[in-house]
Amino acid sequence: MSRSEFDLIARYFSELGFRREDVALGVGDDSALVDPPPGQRLAICTDTLVSGIHFPEDAPAESVGHKALAVNLSDLAAMGAEPAWATLSLTLPEPDEDWIAPFARGLGDLARYHRMSVVGGDLSRGPLSITVQAIGLVPPGRALRRSRASVGDAVLVSGTLGDAALGLRLWRRRAVSVASDASWLMERLHRPTARVSLGMALRDVATACIDVSDGLAADLDHLLAASGVGAVVDVDRLPLSDAGLRFGGGRSHWRTALTGGDDYELCFTVPRQRLHAVDAVASRVGVQLTRIGTVQPGKGLQLVRSDRTPVRLTDTGYRHFRN
Amino acid sequence: MSRSEFDLIARYFSELGFRREDVALGVGDDSALVDPPPGQRLAICTDTLVSGIHFPEDAPAESVGHKALAVNLSDLAAMGAEPAWATLSLTLPEPDEDWIAPFARGLGDLARYHRMSVVGGDLSRGPLSITVQAIGLVPPGRALRRSRASVGDAVLVSGTLGDAALGLRLWRRRAVSVASDASWLMERLHRPTARVSLGMALRDVATACIDVSDGLAADLDHLLAASGVGAVVDVDRLPLSDAGLRFGGGRSHWRTALTGGDDYELCFTVPRQRLHAVDAVASRVGVQLTRIGTVQPGKGLQLVRSDRTPVRLTDTGYRHFRN
Repeated sequence: MSRSEFDLIARYFSELGFRREDVALGVGDDSALVDPPPGQRLAICTDTLVSGIHFPEDAPAESVGHKALAVNLSDLAAMGAEPAWATLSLTLPEPDEDWIAPFARGLGDLARYHRMSVVGGDLSRGPLSITVQAIGLVPPGRALRRSRASVGDAVLVSGTLGDAALGLRLWRRRAVSVASDASWLMERLHRPTARVSLGMALRDVATACIDVSDGLAADLDHLLAASGVGAVVDVDRLPLSDAGLRFGGGRSHWRTALTGGDDYELCFTVPRQRLHAVDAVASRVGVQLTRIGTVQPGKGLQLVRSDRTPVRLTDTGYRHFRN
Repeated sequence: MSRSEFDLIARYFSELGFRREDVALGVGDDSALVDPPPGQRLAICTDTLVSGIHFPEDAPAESVGHKALAVNLSDLAAMGAEPAWATLSLTLPEPDEDWIAPFARGLGDLARYHRMSVVGGDLSRGPLSITVQAIGLVPPGRALRRSRASVGDAVLVSGTLGDAALGLRLWRRRAVSVASDASWLMERLHRPTARVSLGMALRDVATACIDVSDGLAADLDHLLAASGVGAVVDVDRLPLSDAGLRFGGGRSHWRTALTGGDDYELCFTVPRQRLHAVDAVASRVGVQLTRIGTVQPGKGLQLVRSDRTPVRLTDTGYRHFRN
């Protein structure tokens, strides 16, 4: 790759996202310089997407850019943090401008939407993968952690579950569908919505929170372990989309809803006495919030049907090393 | 990879580096939480190392861990920033504990040396690569940028140049040498020293600064372009190590010193009236500083021998896409 080709590519990263006033120096020097607002904590996270592992190799570049940032925004959302700055490390086999341009657009559009500046970029040659690191802001003492759920708290989840897993099935079948349901499910896979406003609105409502990246069962299990409690979840109350019900085999879709990854909804706990605030939050941020269970003593996740019959999952998903 | 194998691996990342008091929440939640000290700017950078591109595939794991952090510390050093927090994204083909343990030790030891906390970790399956993002602190207005060199400033460089490029040649030849010179050169390749103390000491001395990651000619060229000036450099003044002279063909080693990457020295400019401060900085931080040229009007880098004969380079190296 010649210098001029490199410069051509690099300019796509020179001004990505929103131009925040607290950015003293953006992309182009050895480091960026930013002025953190006084009295705020920094929430710092990082997530890598590897081609063929975290997204299909033939995923549209624009949605890969969107998703690379969205999965990090989802981590900030789960802390109740407000997005501020991000850095991007892109490793790609060839300097392909036809791929980079839509990739940068997908990432940049989402950054702008959340008023986030992309302040650093690194471009390497190698197998396609993207690492984003995101920094958000949250007032001290108001961040949502995984570890503060208490016995008796209600367990809630945002949006609907299992859509992205179905979207992946449809994508792999190369379902070029005119059905808007199928397109919607594939959109849920490729262009997840990070629940940023919801996370911030839950700061004084939820006791614990996690984002659903690896499947509700696995992620809720992390939250319960961190809090030293158990929970019972009614699988018949899991929020399923109409498209999910249609393509996922009707009500038996709950298994996918529990184990399918990539939904990027928030799962959180709320004390009974604060449950009244949940409806107000839901209508304020425009996201459906569903109560699916209750925190109980002990450990681990207990699953029941609505008639209280216990059910078991053989596959609860696992974090990071996915196929 | 089973859950228990994953947990085994993940614990290597749970407490890496120094335990800073400003870290409110480290690895293990959706984001880390840190309290930035008031009145400091954040310097933010990120760099990826891809196996086979940025380090030999058979490089020792411990030195890969060291280098993954060192290249980022070098970017902070070039800004005059003090290292504070880092995140680590590791992508690796297999959960190999025999590789992870020394990798984590190499990275963690260097972080501890610089009193830096590794607050976030992400582990993915895929071709081996490591992305570190580092955050440092620098008082407003005192960061070193690339863009402030002025005509008449002296051009200086720290340490010696071309050692890592020779180290790579020796490594590729599988030179299992008892010669301590050869070992030292390979050490310069695998375990570069980021000039963190030097960068901080140059805050009120240098007008512009860059780290030498891609070769002095290429990196100084970036600094000159950002400052809108040119420079003349006397290639006979380039600082060469004894080991470099011995293995690099004597004085003709200057070509390697100009174009070889991975030295991670600092190249910086100092106004004539502040040159007296340079010796004090050199002895305070214990690093050799060599004046190699002068900033002049125009643009680009002009190379001369000590008798003022002009010389040319055919290969000035290029950033990022290396072989």
